[in-house]
Amino acid sequence: MIRETIVTTLSPEGRPHVAPMGATPIDGGWLLQPFRPSTTLENFLATRCGCVNFTDDARVFAGCVTKRRQDWPTEPALAVPSVRLAGALAHDEVEVERIDDGEGQRPKLYCRTVHAANDRAFGGLNRAVAAVLEGAVLVSRLDMLPADKIDAEFGYLQIAIDKTAGPEEREAWGWLSDAVAAHRAKAAS
Amino acid sequence: MIRETIVTTLSPEGRPHVAPMGATPIDGGWLLQPFRPSTTLENFLATRCGCVNFTDDARVFAGCVTKRRQDWPTEPALAVPSVRLAGALAHDEVEVERIDDGEGQRPKLYCRTVHAANDRAFGGLNRAVAAVLEGAVLVSRLDMLPADKIDAEFGYLQIAIDKTAGPEEREAWGWLSDAVAAHRAKAAS
Repeated sequence: MIRETIVTTLSPEGRPHVAPMGATPIDGGWLLQPFRPSTTLENFLATRCGCVNFTDDARVFAGCVTKRRQDWPTEPALAVPSVRLAGALAHDEVEVERIDDGEGQRPKLYCRTVHAANDRAFGGLNRAVAAVLEGAVLVSRLDMLPADKIDAEFGYLQIAIDKTAGPEEREAWGWLSDAVAAHRAKAAS
Repeated sequence: MIRETIVTTLSPEGRPHVAPMGATPIDGGWLLQPFRPSTTLENFLATRCGCVNFTDDARVFAGCVTKRRQDWPTEPALAVPSVRLAGALAHDEVEVERIDDGEGQRPKLYCRTVHAANDRAFGGLNRAVAAVLEGAVLVSRLDMLPADKIDAEFGYLQIAIDKTAGPEEREAWGWLSDAVAAHRAKAAS
């Protein structure tokens, strides 16, 4: 199983970094596979710790993927010298225990959870949040996917947006739609 | 915004009932619109209370929609004489304050939250859970949708299942797929 999470880390200079990441639950923690190169990987290699945050705020995913907004607020973690995502529903504070395939494009970071926090109550599933997440996956692959596939899938996902979104999901969806338009304008010019 | 929730109610005889329901957050509570006739509506009209449960267990949604499994365990609620879904991440215990359009097919029940509980930590979004939810919506409309639309959308949703599901999401997806097959076998005979 893969959970779609927001990973927060600190640079050695103390700069917070917020990045969406698929995370695989493993015994006692999480398997993370950040891309090389990436700020998240650099930070983990330097500080050996971070937080896996669980949120259903669609704007964080869409904001980071589109680079429209990446400076989501963080707060100090409790059990590791790092930061957690402010406003997340829950988060696990983790330490890197072992790194596999350190030279590959996606090294495997086996992380142990040293503190798990239930910060806020889950408010229920929402189809529009899920649609934004799928849209974010598409936007992250704009260079690889044909335009008609993007259009067809955005059209399908739009239905759940229209029927079930609140203002936050609409804002996130707008960022994704803008990113598709900007990508095409750039390709056409 | 519409949240996909599991509503639990008790019959006057004390029989628990578990049903998926889209719920709209309103000031101080939830707007619920159960179909007429439905056990959930009957129970709300008789007992004036129930619970809106927040879970990301895809099996509860798929099990209820396909009728493959509807007897999900419940526990006594704390603040109302009703039941909550066992194992949910969070739940709101509600009282019906006002009913609008009582004669329509979907009466509006304006419910006030009298107790909100954060029962377990949210473990993060999962694309397969969302795919099961979309599949459950399709299965609930099998009589109204053309077969090729069902096939196309199931094919699209299958991608997230293959990439991100755990055993529970796979089981739920299997129930939905079986329901589509059973519907067609019945239509063909």
